[in-house]
Amino acid sequence: MHEFDLIREICQLQGTIPGGVLIGPGDDLAEIRVGERNLLLGVDQLVIGRHVELSASPELIGRKAIARCLSDVAAMAGQPIATLVAAALPQDCDDAWAMAIFEAARNTAEEFGAPIIGGDIAAGEGVLSVTVVAASPLGGAVRRVGARAGDLLCVTGELGDAQSGHHLHFTPRIVEAEAILAAAGSRLHAMIDVSDGLGRDAAHLLEGGGLDIELDAVAIPRRNNCALAQAVSGGEDYELLFACEEPPPELSDCPVTVIGRIANGSGKVMLGQSDVSDCGWEHGR
Amino acid sequence: MHEFDLIREICQLQGTIPGGVLIGPGDDLAEIRVGERNLLLGVDQLVIGRHVELSASPELIGRKAIARCLSDVAAMAGQPIATLVAAALPQDCDDAWAMAIFEAARNTAEEFGAPIIGGDIAAGEGVLSVTVVAASPLGGAVRRVGARAGDLLCVTGELGDAQSGHHLHFTPRIVEAEAILAAAGSRLHAMIDVSDGLGRDAAHLLEGGGLDIELDAVAIPRRNNCALAQAVSGGEDYELLFACEEPPPELSDCPVTVIGRIANGSGKVMLGQSDVSDCGWEHGR
Repeated sequence: MHEFDLIREICQLQGTIPGGVLIGPGDDLAEIRVGERNLLLGVDQLVIGRHVELSASPELIGRKAIARCLSDVAAMAGQPIATLVAAALPQDCDDAWAMAIFEAARNTAEEFGAPIIGGDIAAGEGVLSVTVVAASPLGGAVRRVGARAGDLLCVTGELGDAQSGHHLHFTPRIVEAEAILAAAGSRLHAMIDVSDGLGRDAAHLLEGGGLDIELDAVAIPRRNNCALAQAVSGGEDYELLFACEEPPPELSDCPVTVIGRIANGSGKVMLGQSDVSDCGWEHGR
Repeated sequence: MHEFDLIREICQLQGTIPGGVLIGPGDDLAEIRVGERNLLLGVDQLVIGRHVELSASPELIGRKAIARCLSDVAAMAGQPIATLVAAALPQDCDDAWAMAIFEAARNTAEEFGAPIIGGDIAAGEGVLSVTVVAASPLGGAVRRVGARAGDLLCVTGELGDAQSGHHLHFTPRIVEAEAILAAAGSRLHAMIDVSDGLGRDAAHLLEGGGLDIELDAVAIPRRNNCALAQAVSGGEDYELLFACEEPPPELSDCPVTVIGRIANGSGKVMLGQSDVSDCGWEHGR
C-alpha cells in the first residue's frame, strides 16, 4: 500500500475542495480559513520499530514524533500553535517508558510553541499519531507547487546519513523557514521538507507539471561526507528544500546551499544523466 | 495503562495552560483561541479488533471512526469544520477493504460538514486515529464541569445494549446539542457524551468537586428494554448527558429525558444506595 496513492485517492474522491479549505490533502499540511486567520493542520504517524528503533531511548522516540510534524510546519513557513498526540502502545509496556515518551513529546512541543492540548491512548502495536496546528504566514502558506523555470533550488543544512543519529536529533527548521520567507518574500516560490529523500521530495516540487530539476552533484552538501547516492536517497533529513527566484539569504546558524535549478521539462529530477525522482523512502512501509 | 491517568499526567506535567489555550487536555475536546474565533480540537483512536469487530463491514468501521469524534464535538455543542485521519493498517490488508474504510469515513465526515483535509497511512495493526476540528458555539464551548446543585440531569435518546448494533450506526448528536444550547442558553451548565457508560461519564460531570448525582432508576431510558445495569454501564451510547437548570427542551426527532438531579456531595453517582461512578468501560483496553 502506498501512502501517496491512497491519500490521492481520498483526495480525488473528495472532488471539489469545500469552502473554507484553502489547501486539501496532498501538501505537507492542509490549510483552512477560520475567521480572519489561516490555519495549517496535518497528521503524521511514528511507528515504533519501523520509523524509529524500538531500542531508541523513549526520550528520543517522543521527541521525534513531535519534531517530524513540526518539520511539516516549517515546510510551509508556518508558526506552530498546538499539537495533539494519539498513542497506541503495547498493553504490557512499561509505564515509565510510556511516560518518558510523553514527557519528551511535551517538552519538544513546548520548546517550539506547540503545547500538547489533547491526547488519546489505546492498546496497540506502538504508533504515535501526532496532529499539528499552526498559523499560516501572513502572505499565505508556502506550498510544494509553485516553482518556475529559472528558479534556484536550495537546501538548508546537509543531506544523507540521517540514520547515524540525525533522524533522532534534528531540529525542525521553523526559524530558518521564517527567515527565508522574510528575506525572499514572494520570490520564494515553493518549499518542502526532505523526509523521503532528496530525489523523491524534489519530484514533489514538480507536481504542477511542465518543469524539471537539474541537480548540481558537486554542490549537494553531504552529511559526514557520505556517498552522493546516500545524500540523494537517504531521507529523514528534515531539511528545507525550496525554489527561489534569487540567491537564498545567509542564515546565521544554518548553511543554505544552491543545489540545482528549475528548468522547463516533464517532471524529471536530473542528476547528471539520471532521473532520481524515485530515489528515496517508499511510503506505506 | 489507564487513559485518564496518563492524560492527566500529561496535563499536570504541563503545568499552566499556555496563552491562547482556553481548555487543555481532560475535556471532550481542547479549545484554543485563533484570532477572534474559538476552535475545538480533539483526537480519538478506533482500534480495529477492539473498539470495532474486525468482521464489521469496512463501511461501518470508517463511519464509526469519524462518528465517535463528532460525538465529542456534539458534547461541547460545537460545529464540525474538518477532520484528519491517520491510519495504521496491516501491510497485507486488502486495498478494496482499506478504500471502503476511507470512503465511508469521507462520506460520514462530509455528511456532518467536516471534510477530511489531511491524512497519513502507515503499516500497523489496525488503528484509525481521527482528529476533529470544530468551531465553538458563540457563547463558548459547553464543558464537562459546571453543573450546580439543583440542576436536572438529562439524556438524549436511550442507553444500553449498544453492542447489538447501535455502536456502529449511531448518529452523533450535533444537531441536538445545538438545539439544546439554543433553548437553554446559559442555563445549560455542563455536558458530555456517554461513551464509557452512564456511571463513569456522569462522574466526569462532577470533577469540579462538591457535588453528587442522584439517578432516577425508573426514568433511565433503556434501549431494547435492556437491563438497568446494562443501561448504566454498557457504554458506546454516544448520547448527550447534560446538567441543566431547567427542564430540557423537546426536540422533534430525539427524546430527551430527565434521569436525575445534581446535589451537594462528594463526587458520587448514586443509583439508589449504590455509587455507580465506576460503572463503564475502562480505558486503555
